[in-house]
Amino acid sequence: MALIVQKYGGTSVGTPERIRNCARRILETQRAGNQVVAVVSAMSGVTDNLIKLAKEVSPERDPIEREMDVLLATGEQTTIALTAMAINALGGKAVSLTGAQAGISTDRVHTKARIVNITPDAVKQMLDEGNIVMLAGFQGETASGEITTLGRGGSDLTAIAMAAAIKADLCQIYTDVDGVYTCDPRVVKTAQKIQEISYEEMLEMASSGSKVMQSRSVEFANKFGVRFEVRNSMNNNPGTIVKEETPGMESVVVRGVSLERNQAKVTIDDVADRPGISAAIFGAIATANVTIDMIVQNVSFDGITDISFTLSGADLAKAETVLNAVLPTLGDKAKLRTQSSIAKVSVVGIGMRSHSGVAAKMFKALADAKINIQMISTSEIKTAVIVDEAEVENAARVVHTAFGLDA
Amino acid sequence: MALIVQKYGGTSVGTPERIRNCARRILETQRAGNQVVAVVSAMSGVTDNLIKLAKEVSPERDPIEREMDVLLATGEQTTIALTAMAINALGGKAVSLTGAQAGISTDRVHTKARIVNITPDAVKQMLDEGNIVMLAGFQGETASGEITTLGRGGSDLTAIAMAAAIKADLCQIYTDVDGVYTCDPRVVKTAQKIQEISYEEMLEMASSGSKVMQSRSVEFANKFGVRFEVRNSMNNNPGTIVKEETPGMESVVVRGVSLERNQAKVTIDDVADRPGISAAIFGAIATANVTIDMIVQNVSFDGITDISFTLSGADLAKAETVLNAVLPTLGDKAKLRTQSSIAKVSVVGIGMRSHSGVAAKMFKALADAKINIQMISTSEIKTAVIVDEAEVENAARVVHTAFGLDA
Repeated sequence: MALIVQKYGGTSVGTPERIRNCARRILETQRAGNQVVAVVSAMSGVTDNLIKLAKEVSPERDPIEREMDVLLATGEQTTIALTAMAINALGGKAVSLTGAQAGISTDRVHTKARIVNITPDAVKQMLDEGNIVMLAGFQGETASGEITTLGRGGSDLTAIAMAAAIKADLCQIYTDVDGVYTCDPRVVKTAQKIQEISYEEMLEMASSGSKVMQSRSVEFANKFGVRFEVRNSMNNNPGTIVKEETPGMESVVVRGVSLERNQAKVTIDDVADRPGISAAIFGAIATANVTIDMIVQNVSFDGITDISFTLSGADLAKAETVLNAVLPTLGDKAKLRTQSSIAKVSVVGIGMRSHSGVAAKMFKALADAKINIQMISTSEIKTAVIVDEAEVENAARVVHTAFGLDA
Repeated sequence: MALIVQKYGGTSVGTPERIRNCARRILETQRAGNQVVAVVSAMSGVTDNLIKLAKEVSPERDPIEREMDVLLATGEQTTIALTAMAINALGGKAVSLTGAQAGISTDRVHTKARIVNITPDAVKQMLDEGNIVMLAGFQGETASGEITTLGRGGSDLTAIAMAAAIKADLCQIYTDVDGVYTCDPRVVKTAQKIQEISYEEMLEMASSGSKVMQSRSVEFANKFGVRFEVRNSMNNNPGTIVKEETPGMESVVVRGVSLERNQAKVTIDDVADRPGISAAIFGAIATANVTIDMIVQNVSFDGITDISFTLSGADLAKAETVLNAVLPTLGDKAKLRTQSSIAKVSVVGIGMRSHSGVAAKMFKALADAKINIQMISTSEIKTAVIVDEAEVENAARVVHTAFGLDA
């Protein structure tokens, strides 16, 4: 008998019929001789409707965050009740638990709370009594009993954290794709499903544009050593196992190629090259809550330098506003230039640590395809380049082929 | 400074704009120098939608009741969050509490739980910190932390029970009518709003068809001496005060006239008049969960008697089925007759205790209008008659006039 945690996303439970399909799968898993905790998200569309209602009753200001959590938590509470009903109707035995009832304690940061502790006594007792436990994703409660939500990707986090707390044998993240692919199959038709991927690779894929999971859930799994599988709720295909690195993994140089569109570049030319300049620029950016990605500073010449960085295209206007305000302090000749319509292509793999020539191979593939590289950034297990947005799909394809990922 | 509990029903909070109207009223009440706890129901239509979803995921059986409570409780949780947001957006300070968070403990009878205890520490603390407390109606939790709901009229009960627990100075039940009327104004155009009514009269009005409030909330208010006011959330008119009986109240013989449609009558003719017969009949009815109203047994003749009783028309088929099964045990000649399309008209008033001739006056008014009386039932403060359904409105009008209630 294994102890299994499953997680079903909003699309998988988006209609009564889909809820019944999930109920059948959960029940089959239990009837195969396992104990099952199933984490569910709000039905797709429900959270957006609640946010719309919140804006309508609070047009003067952003809805107050404590109450936003009380409101949004109803979405998952609805799904656990409906799924538990469906399982009972199909002849099984299921009991629902909200985050609070399941002992998920968080800090007090409403709308993006962090899990600080899990007391899984109620979950264990209900499992031992023969129940399937339907657990509300995305939510917890503070030490003083206030409802909190965990922010984006919160239901994945609930599943992985509960799997760690109850020492589950298996954690399955059900979604609407078959697993993690070597590249987005809509872009690269020859993309292959990855059988196994390390936490670090998964993290780099997530942070460089792969949409399968939020980084924080993968970080949490890494920290607590929770092995999990990403798989499809609509079929029985095996998915992708995400786990700690094993020696054999390094034989693959590049695990996957990810792409991130709608990037923008800001260049500040002719900046005085003296201490405090970078602090002035990135301090201003930080106060505007803008996240930046790559940063490149050219070699100084005559006490003058250039600084470039990339950011999401959606944040460009905000960044320009704050930078124009500090520009006069950056030197007499400092000028601001911006470029939108750029994109990032990254290759990721822990094999890079022990294999040289990855960057050179990538650059040659792009050069052969006459794609211009505008910026380069590397980390231990990732090499990323900025190209023109119009060329990003072609760039992903030629790089995917160059590293032998098509087969 | 007064401590006020207000309750707003589903129609009063049925749209974002109506929620903002309630928020304004609640905030005005606080700004007039009071502490306010506001109990809200689910937005109108929400509960029905949830019940529909529950039936869709559980077509094989009635949705399991524990989960029905988890599901339905989201309706009020949504409203408390939205109303608290609206109050905050309007410049006030409000905090929402679910039934569980507010310390409302119930028994374990899911979907119709009874309140066993209220620990209002959280409510008091939040009030003392200057907050308006938005309290979810209709819900509580068991000693072991399971979510329960209180059944029909549950939000009124929440308001009255919390008013008792925190020793509120005033409890206002906001609805979509101006108060309790001497009769349904849609039937009797000259019906008047009642300024004050005793708990007992309110109870008799409720149990004889007046739809303003469920009996159990009035009984609770009576038991704990909670004086409350029924008033309209759409205007500022004074409502009806419901309170303990005062000496002056007896000067009014009849407080109001109520009518109840869709009744049915069952007669069992030629029943053997021996011990155990009534138990057999009404035991069978009870096992079918059918509530009966009036019972009349004729004087026995030659060891044979007739028994008649009334019940809701909706329950008639169910009652016939169980009675046909026991009929052979009721005597050789026992026969079943049924009649639907009847209705009940009642006059209610604590003044009846000290004034004679109420029944006679009622019967004369009906006779003058050529309305036939089919059954009669009396209690200390109520006289009720069964008439043909087609005549019930005319009956209510002539009785209303006869007791001087038109002016």
